[in-house]
Amino acid sequence: MHGIQQSDATRIEHDCIGALPVPAEAYWGIHTARALKNFPASCMPVSHHPELIHSFAIVKRACALANRDLGGISKEQWSAIDAACADVASGDFDDQFPIDVLQGGAGTSTNMNTNEVIANRALELSGRAKGDYTHIHPNDHVNKSQSTNDTYPAAARLAIIEALDTIIDSARRLSRSFRALAQRTMHDVTIGRTQLQDAVPMTFGQEFMAFANILESDITAFTDYRKPLSTMNLGGTAIGTGICSDARFRGYAIDHLAKLTGLPVTAAPEPIAATSDVSDFVMTSSLLKRNATHLGKIANDLRLLCSGPRAGLAEINIPARQAGSSIMPGKVNPVIPECVNQSVFMVMGMDSTVSFAAEAGQLQLNAFEPVILHAILESISILSKAMDTLRENCVEGITVNSKAAKEKAQRCASLATSLIGHIGYERAVEIAKSAMAENITVHEAAEREGSIRPEILEDILNPLELARVQSKA
Amino acid sequence: MHGIQQSDATRIEHDCIGALPVPAEAYWGIHTARALKNFPASCMPVSHHPELIHSFAIVKRACALANRDLGGISKEQWSAIDAACADVASGDFDDQFPIDVLQGGAGTSTNMNTNEVIANRALELSGRAKGDYTHIHPNDHVNKSQSTNDTYPAAARLAIIEALDTIIDSARRLSRSFRALAQRTMHDVTIGRTQLQDAVPMTFGQEFMAFANILESDITAFTDYRKPLSTMNLGGTAIGTGICSDARFRGYAIDHLAKLTGLPVTAAPEPIAATSDVSDFVMTSSLLKRNATHLGKIANDLRLLCSGPRAGLAEINIPARQAGSSIMPGKVNPVIPECVNQSVFMVMGMDSTVSFAAEAGQLQLNAFEPVILHAILESISILSKAMDTLRENCVEGITVNSKAAKEKAQRCASLATSLIGHIGYERAVEIAKSAMAENITVHEAAEREGSIRPEILEDILNPLELARVQSKA
Amino acid sequence: MHGIQQSDATRIEHDCIGALPVPAEAYWGIHTARALKNFPASCMPVSHHPELIHSFAIVKRACALANRDLGGISKEQWSAIDAACADVASGDFDDQFPIDVLQGGAGTSTNMNTNEVIANRALELSGRAKGDYTHIHPNDHVNKSQSTNDTYPAAARLAIIEALDTIIDSARRLSRSFRALAQRTMHDVTIGRTQLQDAVPMTFGQEFMAFANILESDITAFTDYRKPLSTMNLGGTAIGTGICSDARFRGYAIDHLAKLTGLPVTAAPEPIAATSDVSDFVMTSSLLKRNATHLGKIANDLRLLCSGPRAGLAEINIPARQAGSSIMPGKVNPVIPECVNQSVFMVMGMDSTVSFAAEAGQLQLNAFEPVILHAILESISILSKAMDTLRENCVEGITVNSKAAKEKAQRCASLATSLIGHIGYERAVEIAKSAMAENITVHEAAEREGSIRPEILEDILNPLELARVQSKA
Amino acid sequence: MHGIQQSDATRIEHDCIGALPVPAEAYWGIHTARALKNFPASCMPVSHHPELIHSFAIVKRACALANRDLGGISKEQWSAIDAACADVASGDFDDQFPIDVLQGGAGTSTNMNTNEVIANRALELSGRAKGDYTHIHPNDHVNKSQSTNDTYPAAARLAIIEALDTIIDSARRLSRSFRALAQRTMHDVTIGRTQLQDAVPMTFGQEFMAFANILESDITAFTDYRKPLSTMNLGGTAIGTGICSDARFRGYAIDHLAKLTGLPVTAAPEPIAATSDVSDFVMTSSLLKRNATHLGKIANDLRLLCSGPRAGLAEINIPARQAGSSIMPGKVNPVIPECVNQSVFMVMGMDSTVSFAAEAGQLQLNAFEPVILHAILESISILSKAMDTLRENCVEGITVNSKAAKEKAQRCASLATSLIGHIGYERAVEIAKSAMAENITVHEAAEREGSIRPEILEDILNPLELARVQSKA
Repeated sequence: MHGIQQSDATRIEHDCIGALPVPAEAYWGIHTARALKNFPASCMPVSHHPELIHSFAIVKRACALANRDLGGISKEQWSAIDAACADVASGDFDDQFPIDVLQGGAGTSTNMNTNEVIANRALELSGRAKGDYTHIHPNDHVNKSQSTNDTYPAAARLAIIEALDTIIDSARRLSRSFRALAQRTMHDVTIGRTQLQDAVPMTFGQEFMAFANILESDITAFTDYRKPLSTMNLGGTAIGTGICSDARFRGYAIDHLAKLTGLPVTAAPEPIAATSDVSDFVMTSSLLKRNATHLGKIANDLRLLCSGPRAGLAEINIPARQAGSSIMPGKVNPVIPECVNQSVFMVMGMDSTVSFAAEAGQLQLNAFEPVILHAILESISILSKAMDTLRENCVEGITVNSKAAKEKAQRCASLATSLIGHIGYERAVEIAKSAMAENITVHEAAEREGSIRPEILEDILNPLELARVQSKA
Repeated sequence: MHGIQQSDATRIEHDCIGALPVPAEAYWGIHTARALKNFPASCMPVSHHPELIHSFAIVKRACALANRDLGGISKEQWSAIDAACADVASGDFDDQFPIDVLQGGAGTSTNMNTNEVIANRALELSGRAKGDYTHIHPNDHVNKSQSTNDTYPAAARLAIIEALDTIIDSARRLSRSFRALAQRTMHDVTIGRTQLQDAVPMTFGQEFMAFANILESDITAFTDYRKPLSTMNLGGTAIGTGICSDARFRGYAIDHLAKLTGLPVTAAPEPIAATSDVSDFVMTSSLLKRNATHLGKIANDLRLLCSGPRAGLAEINIPARQAGSSIMPGKVNPVIPECVNQSVFMVMGMDSTVSFAAEAGQLQLNAFEPVILHAILESISILSKAMDTLRENCVEGITVNSKAAKEKAQRCASLATSLIGHIGYERAVEIAKSAMAENITVHEAAEREGSIRPEILEDILNPLELARVQSKA
Repeated sequence: MHGIQQSDATRIEHDCIGALPVPAEAYWGIHTARALKNFPASCMPVSHHPELIHSFAIVKRACALANRDLGGISKEQWSAIDAACADVASGDFDDQFPIDVLQGGAGTSTNMNTNEVIANRALELSGRAKGDYTHIHPNDHVNKSQSTNDTYPAAARLAIIEALDTIIDSARRLSRSFRALAQRTMHDVTIGRTQLQDAVPMTFGQEFMAFANILESDITAFTDYRKPLSTMNLGGTAIGTGICSDARFRGYAIDHLAKLTGLPVTAAPEPIAATSDVSDFVMTSSLLKRNATHLGKIANDLRLLCSGPRAGLAEINIPARQAGSSIMPGKVNPVIPECVNQSVFMVMGMDSTVSFAAEAGQLQLNAFEPVILHAILESISILSKAMDTLRENCVEGITVNSKAAKEKAQRCASLATSLIGHIGYERAVEIAKSAMAENITVHEAAEREGSIRPEILEDILNPLELARVQSKA
Repeated sequence: MHGIQQSDATRIEHDCIGALPVPAEAYWGIHTARALKNFPASCMPVSHHPELIHSFAIVKRACALANRDLGGISKEQWSAIDAACADVASGDFDDQFPIDVLQGGAGTSTNMNTNEVIANRALELSGRAKGDYTHIHPNDHVNKSQSTNDTYPAAARLAIIEALDTIIDSARRLSRSFRALAQRTMHDVTIGRTQLQDAVPMTFGQEFMAFANILESDITAFTDYRKPLSTMNLGGTAIGTGICSDARFRGYAIDHLAKLTGLPVTAAPEPIAATSDVSDFVMTSSLLKRNATHLGKIANDLRLLCSGPRAGLAEINIPARQAGSSIMPGKVNPVIPECVNQSVFMVMGMDSTVSFAAEAGQLQLNAFEPVILHAILESISILSKAMDTLRENCVEGITVNSKAAKEKAQRCASLATSLIGHIGYERAVEIAKSAMAENITVHEAAEREGSIRPEILEDILNPLELARVQSKA
């Protein structure tokens, strides 16, 4: 592995501030070395988000191709840079990205880290020594026609798109798991509840299918957002005016990026506005919050439905995953949904972080894109893993207590709802009230009241009919 | 006005809990009377959001039409209900909606308030006494085939769509105002800044145009979201299973609602999931946060750019709107952008409120839709008004200090950026450094360095060229 | 009432911007007139928070006394100003404070509004015409030795202290109500639950007493925070350096304020830091969030415990306050706790608003104190009213289903916890498991297992003993 | 190191769910093994927060002492457990705590992990095999008289108190650094600003001293909160009723813990309320937000004051830490304050996480303490490191541009404030206005106006006098 230092040998590099030794075998250079000293806050290196590194290498590759086409770099330079980009994109150089994710500098450190690793890998592939930047320079050649302000968000967008694939996969598997569970229980009657009060009958299948459906709506929302995220601002350079770049660079680079990624990459229509605007990140975070809200709701419902085992609703059983108590023998807790709830709270927090950072942009740039990107990628990771454990360790093993649930459904006073069409709201109220007062069923109360003939009463109060399951089949 | 009580006369109404006197002239009935006593928290009545009342009346009208078509109510009943709905939708009965916006009950109180007002107005139009519900009953006739759980969110969605028109209008006017300002200042050079540090030249026009552009992106986002918001769940009744409603009711009611509103109203594809899911509200709130983030950024930038008058950036002048200090003579503060900032903070808070409420839904319903709806409508109102005052009392009167700004731009060391293409990054760094060290311009430093011939240096360093304004024209 | 305009007559006033007519009978002047046009965002006037107006008048009174003592104003001026302050503090002039709560200008508008109303009322009391500021000037005399930057936060702190009394009263009444309920039910056994799973026995009394206790901890926290809030920065004037004020003014004004209010008012030890620091407001908002978290928890628990009536936990009954459904006959929902939950969500949002505003202060001032103050006072009002309705309309009428609860408690497998001390954790687990597997009680399973003699088993498994209620009595 | 597995050998353990092999050399057992499979969400092990592990060991030690005193465990058992606790508290076993921080189960997994490691280490020290629990059992002996519900929060409180020492140290060092900077610049005049507009003169020393002061107020707040955090609920066991524990255990354990830690540990007065209440954690998070708000403000101010170098305020210089741009030569950005800002945004997010988790507690427990604790410890770590880098890499190297700042201060129109005491507010306004209109100083304008004699004008307008620095000396 590249990351393990074999010796104490160093090479000297310099920048606008001065000179500094860097480890001889490091692919990164002086800009990375300085950043390492500056940013300790999270103790989490950029390589915690490998998608970002790989995406950045692909962006650099597209830019190198555009520079080659426009004659900005030589064929030899391009060839070495291109191969180096491919190596970085492959993941083999992840350990060369050690800077903290909470870096100041609007991503310049990660951009320069990338430029340095690519330059030194390209030099190596060209048979030259690391640090021999006359031939291939991190700024003049790898970063040519580029700025952090255009390439960093482009890499961020690609990284998010890649990460969204992960969360979409997790959501899809979870959704399918709920769908399968729903199909197994589609005719098992239970009681629907609004405001935690007994409402009207439904089936477990309907209840679980709703979970599948809201997760599918998240998948659609994530998938649809790939398009806005594919709008890149390459060629905008420093502040979107495109200073230092050939006017044709923008189009060339975008085309190459589209080809390399297979994504519908387009150029941001308003490069200056695009440089400082982070709303696509704000909305991505909102979509993650949307998904988190759904997962929180599902976890809450599962915990409620499996509450008990004897003094709760006890309508479903979730797999026992571990002993639930250090003191209460035999107690088993819904630890998997609880893990999901806590993951959700983390994501809600990350969304706040994004809101604060987004609101703090000033003038021609939002300097806080690194924390925004970190929060988004972290949220995606947490939610994906939460959905995976929920599926594997909980949903796939859920069973329902159909007999008890059906009995409960039949005892609920709000079954009287189904009488309204026959006898009106006010008389239905009277029947519901007397059922409650005398601790009998609505069926019994209605029979006694006598307005509806017994033979049709049976039909009217059939809970499976009331749940209208057939209409969904 | 209907709201002012003329006498102490009362009529007696009853519900499942018992009987209660209500003011004889009130159009509302016992359900409203009870809710009035229960909910004091915000001291803000539902009529604070008239869009909700009017939208609810339109939903009831569509349902009455569907009930008429299906024979669920008589032509006479329909005719009176229809006329009553029209009256309520006109705004004439707003004062009959006195229940607090922070009502428990998932909107049942507002729904029953609406049913009661429509019933009593319909009775009145039929020449009958208020409270004579045998003929037209709030539940049996006005609410027929409906539940709070399907009509309240439908009314909420309509109300939001209507309110979005307001915010779109405000955003459009503000965007146009920035666009006009941008056009007036498109050739006035200033310095672009990233991370509050001098970057490269741009023009005021470019800077303001970016404001116009991000607001236009909000308008697009709001407009696009009308479609998801037009998905209604009528016919779902209590928990989405459609209990108590004719299976055809759903389609009929949706069609009537589409016709009445001119909106692309469609039926929610998954009625059970739709009953408990509030993600469209979560995303609406996110879109409002998106807009708020933009406005906060704009307000921050304006305050920065007009800082001074003598010890700040002082690049723009905003209209003096009021004396800025009770003690410092002649001090004038950017009170309008500050009002905008505070409006933004309110909206950020409302989005948190929505997140908490959305995460708290349980089983077949989210009981907290009233606070969600209140937060959204309040945010829309605040943002619209903030944009209006920003435009009228600030943006329209902005002028720029073009001479001073141009001088600043020409003195910035980062002009050396434009030399990179000619002499490479490292020598450009040396020129920038000597310009800073000796307090001279990049032009002077480059001239002395001598690599670039003076006659082309002039061209290279022309700030208007560097800003590439022509490329935007 | 002062607010109703009797005529169209105006008087002309002027400020550093120019001249403007104001209604002849208005006590407010040109600064208020300008602010009225500038700030429309919330549609909520400062008089929505009368505590602020009254507190401001008391601050002005203390300053006038200090100015009198130091000879800064004449005895005649003081006498008129003092009487005017008393009038404003009495509430009679609330309608003279029409500026929006979301005002820019860091509170200058409210300060000048106060100065104007006091000046004009003082002029009136002196037999002079409104607007005749030569005699008593809003800035020179009423505002003497003061700035918005020191008096506005002082008034804000007083207003919060006053408002805290309200919330303390509401919390105390609610706490007492829970305590009374706890005492009525102290020997009624129920099952304690952790993670929604059956845990070990407790009594309803213990459960409700915990609610009383956490509310009492809030009362203590609120009460303790009166001291930090009593630190005032009078005499700091513009930026805390005390420019324009006699060095003795600070001490005099603080002393007078302490006497007028009876509060332990002290001078901020670091006036410059105090001018820009809003952490006492941040922490006040946190205390409100603390209380909100408790109320949300209580409301959630009550809703859970009263869930049913037939398919829920159904351990407690809360008073039926209104019909719960427009469609389901006889359904009664926990609308009061739901109102509390929504109030809590509003307060969580307001706390976010405060966080954003607090984080946005710049240099020598946080310009966003008005929205911070609004959020805090609004939260206090909402929480107080929520606690009042919870007590009156819910807690006072709660009853428990003691028989059913006790039966449940006795059937819970985790009763085996009490066997650990006698037979160790592992054998207790076996007993719990066989109780569950065979659907018998722990008593039955333990009896069969035989390690513990029947006569002491009875004692060990007595739920009231296990709940250790006696140890609390 | 213990964590590196030497072989594939396993031993078999069992729990209420069944049997499972665990690595033979692992000190942890079956409960940890199960949790490892259940919780993948954050990829961050509990050992990320070593304070928690060490604190837990100390809590276990105190409980073991109490059990020894009460005869619940033998002297031999105690002796081995005590030594094992000391080993775990020393940090040597941190690698034995691999469970994810986002664990479900309310901390049971961490508690059982601790019980297992201590039991197995104690067995090892007793010359017995790991897993030979007959002699020393994780539940029966290590966990005796304890529950997760009482020991986990106790360990959490100790861990937070320990972590607070770190943040207090960092804050103290940073405060001292600002204080030293303030003392170096106490007589260097600059202009104070409110609302970003020129206000009245102050000195850099006063400006920086305010930073020192607000940090000191945080230190006081943190220090004061050690007391509430020292309230522990040992002996409460499962739900606070103390089931399974000797009534004397509570007092004994608390006393031992106080002695072991040197902290003023006291028993929670209301054990049942204390079991479910997390308000001390909510308030701790609020205190962290308080500190974060201060740091964000300081970072914002530093970035503003060093803006430029030529087109900004440029009043201070911060050390150049790294090249600021991949494209703009010589650009140096305030990367350290930007890192601080982003750290602040993370903490604001973590506070939201805590709010959500705190609001979600149900009945006798808040199951989400693990995420609350993680968020708090993570925030402390981030803030501490952010303050350290701010001090070392920024504040210690700050210099001021005193000449330019003084010139600016003297040119500000609001110097006219100091004339009010001599000529009244209205004439001072006129002088300020003519100074602005004619682009002259207030001194020049006042001289021309002539009301004040030139010889005293000099004194009145002396900025150092106006800043009242002497009064601070």
